Amino acid sequence: MAITLGPNQYGKAEVRLVTVRRDGPVHHLKDLTVSTSLRGELAATHLTGDNAGVLATDTQKNTVYAFAKEAPVGEIEDFGLRLARHFVGTQENITGARIKIDEHGWDRIAVGGSPHDHAFSRSGNERRTTAVTVQGGRAWVVSGIDGLTLLKSTGSEFHGFPRDQYTTLAETGDRILATAVTARWRYQGEEADWAESHREVRRVMLETFATKHSLSLQQTLYAMGAAVLEARPEVAEVRLSLPNKHHFLVDLSPFGLKNDNEVFYAADRPYGLIEGTILRDDAEDPGPAWDLH
Amino acid sequence: MAITLGPNQYGKAEVRLVTVRRDGPVHHLKDLTVSTSLRGELAATHLTGDNAGVLATDTQKNTVYAFAKEAPVGEIEDFGLRLARHFVGTQENITGARIKIDEHGWDRIAVGGSPHDHAFSRSGNERRTTAVTVQGGRAWVVSGIDGLTLLKSTGSEFHGFPRDQYTTLAETGDRILATAVTARWRYQGEEADWAESHREVRRVMLETFATKHSLSLQQTLYAMGAAVLEARPEVAEVRLSLPNKHHFLVDLSPFGLKNDNEVFYAADRPYGLIEGTILRDDAEDPGPAWDLH
Amino acid sequence: MAITLGPNQYGKAEVRLVTVRRDGPVHHLKDLTVSTSLRGELAATHLTGDNAGVLATDTQKNTVYAFAKEAPVGEIEDFGLRLARHFVGTQENITGARIKIDEHGWDRIAVGGSPHDHAFSRSGNERRTTAVTVQGGRAWVVSGIDGLTLLKSTGSEFHGFPRDQYTTLAETGDRILATAVTARWRYQGEEADWAESHREVRRVMLETFATKHSLSLQQTLYAMGAAVLEARPEVAEVRLSLPNKHHFLVDLSPFGLKNDNEVFYAADRPYGLIEGTILRDDAEDPGPAWDLH
Amino acid sequence: MAITLGPNQYGKAEVRLVTVRRDGPVHHLKDLTVSTSLRGELAATHLTGDNAGVLATDTQKNTVYAFAKEAPVGEIEDFGLRLARHFVGTQENITGARIKIDEHGWDRIAVGGSPHDHAFSRSGNERRTTAVTVQGGRAWVVSGIDGLTLLKSTGSEFHGFPRDQYTTLAETGDRILATAVTARWRYQGEEADWAESHREVRRVMLETFATKHSLSLQQTLYAMGAAVLEARPEVAEVRLSLPNKHHFLVDLSPFGLKNDNEVFYAADRPYGLIEGTILRDDAEDPGPAWDLH
Repeated sequence: MAITLGPNQYGKAEVRLVTVRRDGPVHHLKDLTVSTSLRGELAATHLTGDNAGVLATDTQKNTVYAFAKEAPVGEIEDFGLRLARHFVGTQENITGARIKIDEHGWDRIAVGGSPHDHAFSRSGNERRTTAVTVQGGRAWVVSGIDGLTLLKSTGSEFHGFPRDQYTTLAETGDRILATAVTARWRYQGEEADWAESHREVRRVMLETFATKHSLSLQQTLYAMGAAVLEARPEVAEVRLSLPNKHHFLVDLSPFGLKNDNEVFYAADRPYGLIEGTILRDDAEDPGPAWDLH
Repeated sequence: MAITLGPNQYGKAEVRLVTVRRDGPVHHLKDLTVSTSLRGELAATHLTGDNAGVLATDTQKNTVYAFAKEAPVGEIEDFGLRLARHFVGTQENITGARIKIDEHGWDRIAVGGSPHDHAFSRSGNERRTTAVTVQGGRAWVVSGIDGLTLLKSTGSEFHGFPRDQYTTLAETGDRILATAVTARWRYQGEEADWAESHREVRRVMLETFATKHSLSLQQTLYAMGAAVLEARPEVAEVRLSLPNKHHFLVDLSPFGLKNDNEVFYAADRPYGLIEGTILRDDAEDPGPAWDLH
Repeated sequence: MAITLGPNQYGKAEVRLVTVRRDGPVHHLKDLTVSTSLRGELAATHLTGDNAGVLATDTQKNTVYAFAKEAPVGEIEDFGLRLARHFVGTQENITGARIKIDEHGWDRIAVGGSPHDHAFSRSGNERRTTAVTVQGGRAWVVSGIDGLTLLKSTGSEFHGFPRDQYTTLAETGDRILATAVTARWRYQGEEADWAESHREVRRVMLETFATKHSLSLQQTLYAMGAAVLEARPEVAEVRLSLPNKHHFLVDLSPFGLKNDNEVFYAADRPYGLIEGTILRDDAEDPGPAWDLH
Repeated sequence: MAITLGPNQYGKAEVRLVTVRRDGPVHHLKDLTVSTSLRGELAATHLTGDNAGVLATDTQKNTVYAFAKEAPVGEIEDFGLRLARHFVGTQENITGARIKIDEHGWDRIAVGGSPHDHAFSRSGNERRTTAVTVQGGRAWVVSGIDGLTLLKSTGSEFHGFPRDQYTTLAETGDRILATAVTARWRYQGEEADWAESHREVRRVMLETFATKHSLSLQQTLYAMGAAVLEARPEVAEVRLSLPNKHHFLVDLSPFGLKNDNEVFYAADRPYGLIEGTILRDDAEDPGPAWDLH
């Protein structure tokens, strides 16, 4: 028997970067969490502790900060591509890089009804994300959304499911449907209008969630992904992970009350979890875009 | 030596209640987390396990759900008052009740530019809160805001502080000031236009944070509280807890770069924590409004 | 109407301090989270931004680290007292200080059955805590335990509670009782064998939880606190906050199965919350020991 | 262009199951979090909302509870295999199942030095985990450990790394090395002495972390994985994800103090993240063992 080193990577996780662009009195804010990881010929450090090929994770962090000064950060996809190409291009033994970035939103505080020049409030939990992979002279971009919590108070049914000896769930023709969207979409090619694409993917998913009459969360998931592919030719594939955040109708009959879909208990755990991929037939191969390593 | 039972209370914490008001096709959502606690003559259960005076916490939970059906929930302050008065009014040994409610916001999803009738997205982390106390024929209302994260990218200085042998901090005439507001304000009397008051207190605090030039977070804190008291006669007292969410300027000089307040590291811990009370001279006594027990 | 500044304090929260005592090859670890807060004549910074009396929170952090080097940290109560007395003793306008410390435990890793000299694994979630207050030439010490989760699988009943129109809970003669202990105890005087006292208070509470047959969580709470006061003369008062972490019996009857207290669903929310104080008749006045500000 | 449904699965996540085995007065506790997911012919529900092949996630939850009664839960790997085979064996369109289980530890409370019959305290954050996959007449078992936080206060160096224009990190011959182990190991075949294997894998990893002199966290990672493969023939492959939980030496020189590796600041973010796979040359193909879907 021989023991070998398989897939591996290393980097600096969760570098918190905030930049202020000061174009006269009006300031522009970027609030990012950047994680870098490098892959390549790294057997020496694993086997003998020889670090000659290990660009320190501290250096990776410094590079993130220096790059944020050397040129405007711009869209997170572009910033990720610059960083990934830098690491692969400057370290001989590093043949691949994955840069993951979360962007946290800020709104301008309204003062007397007008947006303030340099005062902001945090937008909420939703994050715009990207994971850029550079390897073998190519780049792959997977962007996404985290933490977008949605609910519709009607327009959702669930029935016709099989009943075995462990089934007690009643069928329903009207239920609350709620979820927290984790969406990832893979781009065709290495270039796009990232900001517009993110904005439109988000809009299409939200509108589809709202308007698609739902017979199952799976049907909603597929409709959301398919609508994105129909609207955005630059997107090859969509992956969605949708927890079914159960809102159970409270049984008020012991108190002589009728509950016409008015009073609900929002449960924490357990929750349904629906995960699926929607893709184009003719999409190019994903390569390492989705690889963990 | 004798051992005695001191202040005590019990109740059901974090009852998750979501209600849907269905006025024709347009639905209205309330999303609350309700915690009840009861006080009074409760020595028997502590000393002997005699539960004759212990209205079960399960019953308290049921009451929250039943009350949400018996009449529209309305503003959280009113819902808390109804619940508190019910418990004190119906249980002989219960002489006090504290009801705490957090309200989670939802926005209507825009479809084709118009707000949808029954589809919503979660607004963010900010919660509107209240803590209602009913005791001795009176009620006290303390409302508040949690999780409102603010940042200004200029208009903040910090200097003139004392320097002892452990002081290394440089003075600054321009820094990022960021915080996550935990605000609580105590009302005079038992009645107010709760919704308008919450909206206006929030607006005044945000505008003051944005426009007040800051020489210390303490000065900002006081200005925010004082502005609320000046604008809202129904408020007797404001308490603010403001973490100083440090954004440190990254030293880019090792890379031959100048950092003109452009690139920052957002730190997690430790953080400054500034806590203060601003109140009217002639405010009535708070009674048990702020008591933990 | 005049607006005034009420109770206030400021400091540095959650300074993460790890010390290694190297007595030859055997190392000793301390892992603390320290929060400082100072009180006194602080109106100037609030009203005008004059910081002449504001020892920077950065300086407070530095002081924590420097003190950890200048003498062995020792017990957290002693470290807190040293820090508090330093701040009150050296800053003219600072008349009070509260130092809060959480201690995180580490166990030595066993190698070949023997504890290793310098390798450790984290003990778990439980924290030993203290909150030291120095003011007006005196000190108060409130120590405690957080995050100690307990469960007994029998020896707990709950019945005899009142039934109103909202009561549906069945009485039970045998249930799981589970909680996560938040305990705080106030010491008489400013000196004690802190380590032994913590160890014994913990032991007494655990043994009481285990052996006291429980008719309500209130009865268990009182018994735990009273047992501490009986065993430890240095303790004046105990405050306990005990969530009732519900373990609901799963109804297996739809599947033709009987559930003899064997299969439970551990719920997250809502939960019962029982809070109480047990104290000596002749305990000295707590002074500012428990004050938030 | 045509749009198609790619890999997908659905199930119930985080079913909280606690069982009590009552063998006379001595009780035995199991505390599990179980997540089920099913795969197979599920296009209908995605495309048309026809749920004839969708065994409800509520039914999956019921099955977990019923199975916990029908036979002793036993080791989590066996419980997972029973559940997975049940779902695949009874639902015609379901061709694969993944069951993930976390086990939370409890210790008996010591009373008078002896372990109590039915009173327990939670062991800490560490979880024993498994992910069982059943598909195409075969089963794969990947077990693991989460939340095991380790630290060594010496025996760790880091130097010899490349220095580019963004490198500022100093080399060190003695640093604290701390991490929180996320370990996963894939078994050869479908049977093993799961409990012994878990215990021994854990022991070997801990002892290796403690005793292996470390020139990089990568070297420690590889040594931990290789030691497991050397000791345990039933294990085909080990995957480790090791955050480098930085403990930075505090610069005490401004205070005239020397810091001989005694006083450290434990940082939250960013952190290094080292991920790697160690496997046998002759290990069988992993099949779907590691697939997300």
